[in-house]
Amino acid sequence: MQDEHISLDHGSGGRLSHELVTEQLLPLFDNPILSRMDDGAALVIDGVHLAFSTDTFVVDPLFFPGGSIGELAVNGTVNDLAMCGAVPLYLGMGLIIEEGFSQGTLMEVLTAMRRAAQRAGVQVVTGDTKVVPRGAVDKLFINTSGIGRIPKGRHLSSDAAKPGDAVLLSGTMADHGMTILNAREKLAFSGEMASDTAALHDLVAAIFSVTADVHVLRDPTRGGVGTALGEIAARSRVGIDIREANLPVNGPVAGMCDLLGIDPLYVANEGKLLAFVAPEVAGDVLAAMRSHPLGRGAVVLGQVVAEHPGKVYMNTRIGGRRIVPMLTGEQLPRIC
Amino acid sequence: MQDEHISLDHGSGGRLSHELVTEQLLPLFDNPILSRMDDGAALVIDGVHLAFSTDTFVVDPLFFPGGSIGELAVNGTVNDLAMCGAVPLYLGMGLIIEEGFSQGTLMEVLTAMRRAAQRAGVQVVTGDTKVVPRGAVDKLFINTSGIGRIPKGRHLSSDAAKPGDAVLLSGTMADHGMTILNAREKLAFSGEMASDTAALHDLVAAIFSVTADVHVLRDPTRGGVGTALGEIAARSRVGIDIREANLPVNGPVAGMCDLLGIDPLYVANEGKLLAFVAPEVAGDVLAAMRSHPLGRGAVVLGQVVAEHPGKVYMNTRIGGRRIVPMLTGEQLPRIC
Repeated sequence: MQDEHISLDHGSGGRLSHELVTEQLLPLFDNPILSRMDDGAALVIDGVHLAFSTDTFVVDPLFFPGGSIGELAVNGTVNDLAMCGAVPLYLGMGLIIEEGFSQGTLMEVLTAMRRAAQRAGVQVVTGDTKVVPRGAVDKLFINTSGIGRIPKGRHLSSDAAKPGDAVLLSGTMADHGMTILNAREKLAFSGEMASDTAALHDLVAAIFSVTADVHVLRDPTRGGVGTALGEIAARSRVGIDIREANLPVNGPVAGMCDLLGIDPLYVANEGKLLAFVAPEVAGDVLAAMRSHPLGRGAVVLGQVVAEHPGKVYMNTRIGGRRIVPMLTGEQLPRIC
Repeated sequence: MQDEHISLDHGSGGRLSHELVTEQLLPLFDNPILSRMDDGAALVIDGVHLAFSTDTFVVDPLFFPGGSIGELAVNGTVNDLAMCGAVPLYLGMGLIIEEGFSQGTLMEVLTAMRRAAQRAGVQVVTGDTKVVPRGAVDKLFINTSGIGRIPKGRHLSSDAAKPGDAVLLSGTMADHGMTILNAREKLAFSGEMASDTAALHDLVAAIFSVTADVHVLRDPTRGGVGTALGEIAARSRVGIDIREANLPVNGPVAGMCDLLGIDPLYVANEGKLLAFVAPEVAGDVLAAMRSHPLGRGAVVLGQVVAEHPGKVYMNTRIGGRRIVPMLTGEQLPRIC
């Protein structure tokens, strides 16, 4: 192999990440579970259906409006499990701490993790702490892994979208990513802006309370809604049509995106989900989402079509139509 | 709280690590599973007994005689599961890569992980890749988490040692730690020296093939055999007596330890285990260990006693007797 180097784009959640995973990691660790490329792995052990997921958090800064790396680390893995249709149960926590890091700050982060774990109804049951010399890591990174139980009859996967499915989004886009950018670069955009970090398992429960006919759930984190839709279109071999007029973005976030020339479609969310459901239940699911505190801003974003498989198209506000490509560059490093 | 700072000692596996975990982490995430402080968590989900574990690897250098961070990351978590008596099944892998890291080197590490996973009979089923800007992490860190199934009737825990138990060690001490130190500091100690990194699940199976009466299994990684024994004595509220004459150390490792003034009792191992078994089966277990390739050098290190609970004593070669304290300082950072 030619000695190329890893770039930030390989971790963006966009096209290069996708290529690194599909062209290098998947062939190496080839197995049907990993190949599904879902947020978590769906396993069956002695007849019990489980979800298993892992995620590392390297966000900078550690604290930001709406939360900290602590909430993010718990909610992120809880959400990966929830997107498999699982009830999250147990978390493992791996800390990497830079020598000299404040013990008080560490306790603040851990206290945030405990609060988030209590809220999500999960227990931290195993952990590991590494301390590395100054300069070997920037302050604090946290890995969380998790296990959940998948109730019978739930078979969610990014390859399960079907033509006709309604594509629902639970609320506004880009709140997390733009909040981090604003905090890190001290851009001082004014207006209310906060990370949307939240545990989505209860919103998922609300969805399943009205129907079992849910095909795909996905929380559009790195790479945003645009990249998540692109991956689902590719994996399910279907087309997706969305309407620009339906894309929800909070005012201050939209203003900041406009000024910086950033498309909110590609900015990370940490408390939103995409749901692909059969058209006949879409109205009920939308209503259930809207009556949940984390889904008040839910919208129908568009629908799955048999045409243009693997591609996402957007009908624009001004009556045009354009393709929605996957994110190609790294917009924002260390966003989660 | 006073604003103290995290030191390398907090990650040493020794006394300060122990205090950080028992005095700060455990009270925060208080639950009976975590409180057992075993290498992994023993869970029951819908009647199925599972082990769950997480470990982060920050070893420097990435490649060393006997292996690389790749083997270490797979074997480390496989061993944590095996020490719960579990048959390791599935791994999650979290990569943190420094921008600019060689893709070729990454593939070498991942290929080592695949080989190690195949050897251990586990599948990597979920993963996460983060790339951080230059300087935010030193080259490559890897977290692995794992799930295994615990066969019925196995109840291992560090609090289960009983007076009379024989304390067995599967082979020589300190090979991994001294190899890393030699490689990193370019000390150029000559003589055969290599990390003992290995997956111990099959050695565990060999032990269980002769008896179910195994009380504690522990792989003495950071902090070494001395610290592992101290933790087991404390958790089980028993005393442990070991004989210095029985402590196995390879010649070149012993020579290097002597010259540097390092006690091999506190140096990390990555392919050894301590087994606490009922005295009546100790002979059979020792024989089973010795007929396994990873247990050829197995010895009876000593025994559990009712006296001096929480403390480990060593009968020295010259007929003396001394306490074996837990490791207090950090001997070797980034050893695993």
